[in-house]
Amino acid sequence: MKKIMNDKNTLVSDMLKGYVEAYSNRVKLVEPNLICRSVPKQKGKVGIVIGNGSGHEPAMIDLVGKGLLDVNVVGKIFTAPPPFDMLEGIKQADYGAGVLVMVSSHQGDILNARMAIMLAEAEGIQAKMVILYDDIFSAPKGQEKERRGTAGLFFCWKIVGAAAESGADLDTCIALAQKVRDNTRTLSVAVSSGTNPETGLKTFELPEDEIEVGMGVHGEAGKGRMKLTTAKDIVNYMMKELIEDKAFHSGEDVMVLLNNSGSTTRMELMIIYKCIAEYLALEGIHVARNWVGTYVTTQEMAGFSISLCKTDNEMLSYYDDIADSPLF
Amino acid sequence: MKKIMNDKNTLVSDMLKGYVEAYSNRVKLVEPNLICRSVPKQKGKVGIVIGNGSGHEPAMIDLVGKGLLDVNVVGKIFTAPPPFDMLEGIKQADYGAGVLVMVSSHQGDILNARMAIMLAEAEGIQAKMVILYDDIFSAPKGQEKERRGTAGLFFCWKIVGAAAESGADLDTCIALAQKVRDNTRTLSVAVSSGTNPETGLKTFELPEDEIEVGMGVHGEAGKGRMKLTTAKDIVNYMMKELIEDKAFHSGEDVMVLLNNSGSTTRMELMIIYKCIAEYLALEGIHVARNWVGTYVTTQEMAGFSISLCKTDNEMLSYYDDIADSPLF
Repeated sequence: MKKIMNDKNTLVSDMLKGYVEAYSNRVKLVEPNLICRSVPKQKGKVGIVIGNGSGHEPAMIDLVGKGLLDVNVVGKIFTAPPPFDMLEGIKQADYGAGVLVMVSSHQGDILNARMAIMLAEAEGIQAKMVILYDDIFSAPKGQEKERRGTAGLFFCWKIVGAAAESGADLDTCIALAQKVRDNTRTLSVAVSSGTNPETGLKTFELPEDEIEVGMGVHGEAGKGRMKLTTAKDIVNYMMKELIEDKAFHSGEDVMVLLNNSGSTTRMELMIIYKCIAEYLALEGIHVARNWVGTYVTTQEMAGFSISLCKTDNEMLSYYDDIADSPLF
Repeated sequence: MKKIMNDKNTLVSDMLKGYVEAYSNRVKLVEPNLICRSVPKQKGKVGIVIGNGSGHEPAMIDLVGKGLLDVNVVGKIFTAPPPFDMLEGIKQADYGAGVLVMVSSHQGDILNARMAIMLAEAEGIQAKMVILYDDIFSAPKGQEKERRGTAGLFFCWKIVGAAAESGADLDTCIALAQKVRDNTRTLSVAVSSGTNPETGLKTFELPEDEIEVGMGVHGEAGKGRMKLTTAKDIVNYMMKELIEDKAFHSGEDVMVLLNNSGSTTRMELMIIYKCIAEYLALEGIHVARNWVGTYVTTQEMAGFSISLCKTDNEMLSYYDDIADSPLF
């Protein structure tokens, strides 16, 4: 895959400058790597910060805005931003009511966020961390805390972002994040690799007739491979695993997120969504809301993930709140 | 490229069913291939219809909604829908004040739309066609009417859609479409091919170190190939051609559309947008509005197009009007 870029050494910086140029009415760049709202939140509200490696766009730069994040701390390609960058992000998001760092569970992200929070506390800022995970094939049932964070975290980000905007306090935001997380399950498949734009190397190799199941957002290996079959067979397999893992039941309301990992076409996504809807209808599970599109990518990797979140009126109300960012 | 699908014979039908399932609050499917608004426009307003081959999603199914299209008539892969399908679309969009068929200039689309309009008139429906084109490398300057329609048509669709919604009459909508069209220029490049999901064949072959310049949305050949170089060099070349073709001048306001043809990453798009903004700033041309994202694709083709539209207050006002569809 040929990438259209200038200098691999300024890849992330060029992207961030282009991003704030394109959305100058909404966001600003605090050099070198913080995307912040142009118009900060009111004083006395909880600030929300996410740090992540770049290469997954639109995640997370496109989530900074009203009803969503206050600050996105952008790391190098597929690399957690360092603690002092996270500390800067926390400072920028401090409106006097505490800052919540919502961490997608990966070792580097957790370590760096933890250190940043210690540094922030030493400076008198109340900062807390919540660790988010959803990928059912990255650790077995019963060991949910060992699981990785993937696309299902968008439910947390949207819902907790809305709660913080509405004035919920720090403890309420943390409890809500945990509730959404504990009700969310994700499973992904990949049909072809993306390319690391710095190295030019594919993130993995896959035979022409196979797909990888349970792949992470950096191309981490999943539970193994299966033969490429029909959309229906792939979806049925994934839905069965997801529903068993959480024990989603007939009569329950779920939110569905069908995420394109990069170069899966919208035509394919719609065919996949039809299979998901048919499966849930047979199970008697009601789709309360859905998102179908490109949320978190692994560069141009082809593949998709399905996330389900068992929902209630509190979550739906925040889900429906207006958000204003390039993605929402 | 492996496609995730069920049966190639039901590809388009499966997509349309998935689409209306995902967006059942906004759109409905009139079998077999019309995407229509769930809640029709008020009587006495102009209806807007577009017909197109499928395979370019989100174009145009994601444009049906308030302030945009009334009906999208969806053809087979890369194939204009037949006249009787277009006639059905016109009938569905008839609210008694005339129907405007906005045709992206390709031979089959024009012929089939023209025949459908004759059939509609024979049934007493006032229907008109406006032919839209923007691709500067598909015919030379001075022969604009021979040019193809590509991504720049989104300016027409958004603006005329808003005008029709606001109650503009048929002649006003036609004049506005012509004005936007005559002020729009597009140029595209492709770095790698997409795959036809029916045949499994790539739409073209391109060496690892070359890009195709001026490619159409079906993979039609452009003006030739050039060596893959930096984003800045590619953008500078394209911007020079675009600005000379229309004669955009310093001090003018333009709308910019940077379109991802399929699997170009958002990171690349932002790097490209930075180059565009820098070029326009040097020329003294002001970016009044911009869209940066995935609007019309050629399946998973990697590449992008740049569209510029010289704008005025009338266009900007309609551009800013609220639209409600999955894409906007």
